Amino acid sequence: MKIITISREFGSGGREVAKRLSDILGIAYYDSEIIAEIANKSQLDKNYVASTLEKGVQFNIPLHFGRSLSYIPTTNIATDLLVEQSNVIKEIAQKGDCIIVGRAADVILKEYNPFRIFVYADMPSKIERCQKRAPEGENLTDKQMEKKIRQMDKGRSDNYNLLSLSRWGEKTNYDLCVNTSNADIKEITPMIAEYAKLWFKDRE
Amino acid sequence: MKIITISREFGSGGREVAKRLSDILGIAYYDSEIIAEIANKSQLDKNYVASTLEKGVQFNIPLHFGRSLSYIPTTNIATDLLVEQSNVIKEIAQKGDCIIVGRAADVILKEYNPFRIFVYADMPSKIERCQKRAPEGENLTDKQMEKKIRQMDKGRSDNYNLLSLSRWGEKTNYDLCVNTSNADIKEITPMIAEYAKLWFKDRE
Repeated sequence: MKIITISREFGSGGREVAKRLSDILGIAYYDSEIIAEIANKSQLDKNYVASTLEKGVQFNIPLHFGRSLSYIPTTNIATDLLVEQSNVIKEIAQKGDCIIVGRAADVILKEYNPFRIFVYADMPSKIERCQKRAPEGENLTDKQMEKKIRQMDKGRSDNYNLLSLSRWGEKTNYDLCVNTSNADIKEITPMIAEYAKLWFKDRE
Repeated sequence: MKIITISREFGSGGREVAKRLSDILGIAYYDSEIIAEIANKSQLDKNYVASTLEKGVQFNIPLHFGRSLSYIPTTNIATDLLVEQSNVIKEIAQKGDCIIVGRAADVILKEYNPFRIFVYADMPSKIERCQKRAPEGENLTDKQMEKKIRQMDKGRSDNYNLLSLSRWGEKTNYDLCVNTSNADIKEITPMIAEYAKLWFKDRE
């Protein structure tokens, strides 16, 4: 079975890598379908589901002087949605070959031995990429955009850390880490595709 | 010009990657030749040069209470050898296509826009690889081997940090980071070669 997980820093072009890789390899790519399915199962609005998951799950950490630290998670809708997301991702993988972007799919699908990619870039490249694809009327300054990028990645990191003891973005968690700074995703993706083809061939 | 720099954690198989990549791509690979040339130029013994560079350059940091921190580098043979090493690496690159392992060549040859690879693995894989290739009579326990691996990487990291503001092993410094945990270098290298071929093709 060919399962590829693509984790990525916000603005690194990871989603475009996934789409292009899907075209080259002929493997279905899942992204908004996951949100749609969670929304369907939980009977919640798609946008609400997406934005709640994006923010990341936070915990309240009360500190009791003189006692050991006790972490009391706020059970809330965000944790429920994360659990639902795990189920949806597992169902997709059970159906067959797939490419899944983000959502800690590398951890959730660990038993399938997925090919785990991490896509990253330096901050100037990420700001530039985000500015280019910004929706009409967003008009963030570069400084504001950098703040947004850090916030988005904080959410991803928080969610990842709920599922894994190791850190999001830590290279040991991935089989291949690809730097897209100053790179054209159209040119980068065929290289990843060649790598992935041989990877799966070696495991046949 | 095709310049490939391969940085690697001790025990990750990075040197074998370099050798095999050299065979596949037909690009000369430099390693012990660099030490021989430094030894030649400095009129020092090869083994002495190699072990001094391996240890990494340390600094004495005197702390003066009430004053700002002042870093006073110990000028010693190690720093002289590092400078000589930089020169030798630049001379090699001036001659043409090359693959250079370690020695912060990615920083030293920055202006040549090299293809920068980082090879890494999890600790159990590195220990296993080091035990397999250990010289007759070394007989380190796994715990001792882990200590040795950390020491070797500490030396590499110290030398790197002399030349660069960013950290050795930090993925932003590399174009591609390759995980060799549980992997056969013989199988991994052709994938890197395919990636590298397209990389240089895009830059022709």
